[in-house]
Amino acid sequence: MPENKMTEAELAERLRVAPFHKWLGLELTEMTEDGIEIRVPWREEFVVNVDVGYTHGGILATLIDVAADYAIAAKLGRPVPTIDMRVDYHRAAMKGDLVVHAQALKLGGSFSTGEAQVYDEAGKLLASGRGVYFTAPPK
Amino acid sequence: MPENKMTEAELAERLRVAPFHKWLGLELTEMTEDGIEIRVPWREEFVVNVDVGYTHGGILATLIDVAADYAIAAKLGRPVPTIDMRVDYHRAAMKGDLVVHAQALKLGGSFSTGEAQVYDEAGKLLASGRGVYFTAPPK
Amino acid sequence: MPENKMTEAELAERLRVAPFHKWLGLELTEMTEDGIEIRVPWREEFVVNVDVGYTHGGILATLIDVAADYAIAAKLGRPVPTIDMRVDYHRAAMKGDLVVHAQALKLGGSFSTGEAQVYDEAGKLLASGRGVYFTAPPK
Amino acid sequence: MPENKMTEAELAERLRVAPFHKWLGLELTEMTEDGIEIRVPWREEFVVNVDVGYTHGGILATLIDVAADYAIAAKLGRPVPTIDMRVDYHRAAMKGDLVVHAQALKLGGSFSTGEAQVYDEAGKLLASGRGVYFTAPPK
Repeated sequence: MPENKMTEAELAERLRVAPFHKWLGLELTEMTEDGIEIRVPWREEFVVNVDVGYTHGGILATLIDVAADYAIAAKLGRPVPTIDMRVDYHRAAMKGDLVVHAQALKLGGSFSTGEAQVYDEAGKLLASGRGVYFTAPPK
Repeated sequence: MPENKMTEAELAERLRVAPFHKWLGLELTEMTEDGIEIRVPWREEFVVNVDVGYTHGGILATLIDVAADYAIAAKLGRPVPTIDMRVDYHRAAMKGDLVVHAQALKLGGSFSTGEAQVYDEAGKLLASGRGVYFTAPPK
Repeated sequence: MPENKMTEAELAERLRVAPFHKWLGLELTEMTEDGIEIRVPWREEFVVNVDVGYTHGGILATLIDVAADYAIAAKLGRPVPTIDMRVDYHRAAMKGDLVVHAQALKLGGSFSTGEAQVYDEAGKLLASGRGVYFTAPPK
Repeated sequence: MPENKMTEAELAERLRVAPFHKWLGLELTEMTEDGIEIRVPWREEFVVNVDVGYTHGGILATLIDVAADYAIAAKLGRPVPTIDMRVDYHRAAMKGDLVVHAQALKLGGSFSTGEAQVYDEAGKLLASGRGVYFTAPPK
């Protein structure tokens, strides 16, 4: 795996550009050579089930896509288009902030695979998954 | 495939209960025995790339999960928990409203598969995918 | 979707080149502009469960990968490398020959998506899934 | 994660019952509380491309499904039906024996997720993926 091409401050700033990332409140809280961590403050609009307060699976899917993408971005110097992604839901996500970890799993000249895990504040694994990203050099 | 267990009005109302669905502006616009159609008005917070105005892949993933879930809900009488989901991105989603089609692909006593497609207003396929849902009878 | 670039006879012959395809006994039985059909004679080595005679899920996964690949091959003139694939298992595959249908879902200059369904002899859907293939022009 | 419910010898023996596993030559070479290792001797029928000798992606997909299943079997005391599986192909698998690692990622009362990686003899990662398995107690 090559070394990161962006500093943590650069990646953090890049992450906040997208309007949907802003709405989600995404904050890069760590970047190492092994991966990244993103924190997500809970908001009421995340909820799918009003009685129990579960966070919507689409929010978790989004976090996995974004985090895996930015784990690759750290290595390549830019976020990349998603080709496809898959999410496994492990536990209901109760009301509360979320912590997402992500790693570049395999970098390639045409496409790359990243992986991410979403945890609750207590460190329980809520969802995890992978994305495949288009990483051919820009023309 | 069994007959629908909800009327179109019931499914439409059920779809609007979730706060995240409200934020997304989801509207059920058709329900037949073969599947459902959901319309989604574009909003600025959907955007991932401010220069070009692309809609975020996480929004498309959410729509596929929700629509496949509700295509199964029409058959079972209730929305169901997602076990896992997968999304293929076919084209960049430019600024504009979205139309989602979804079908129950296989219903089972323990788990079921649904499928969905996201189109732009011109009818171009932007993304498609599948979810597997937990459909054991509630205790 | 562009027109097929191979004749049915060419595709049938190409399919039989791979030693694993020969072992599986794959036979192209139809090719139209909309997709292909492959027939697979049952063999005892396919079995995972000796009591009941189920065919192994890995055989069904292989058939989905191969068929989706060759549905794209019909359009492009050559089989293509798989980037990733996903399989949903719908029913246990009892002893008996298999019929696989496959379609190119979206062709792209860098990667393409194909889809396939595996049926038993009675026409029951046993498994279905998708693959994403690397379709950049060969250098 | 609960403790293993089978001994390594029991799991090794169980793995060899299925005719397709026998044909593949699967051999359990390690079982710990963290996962399992399976070795697969190369055979000529694995090949997809006769010029280069690549192993067929369907073989790799099969290995991921089987290994993730048996990593869960170690924990539950029995192999379990696959609900769905997904494979990422990272590198062409050249002629040679294969080593598969697998781990139970999340065990649940109704369904569970397992993960597996296929390596070549030099330890290069060729493919990896996940399966979701039906783990409700047998009636």
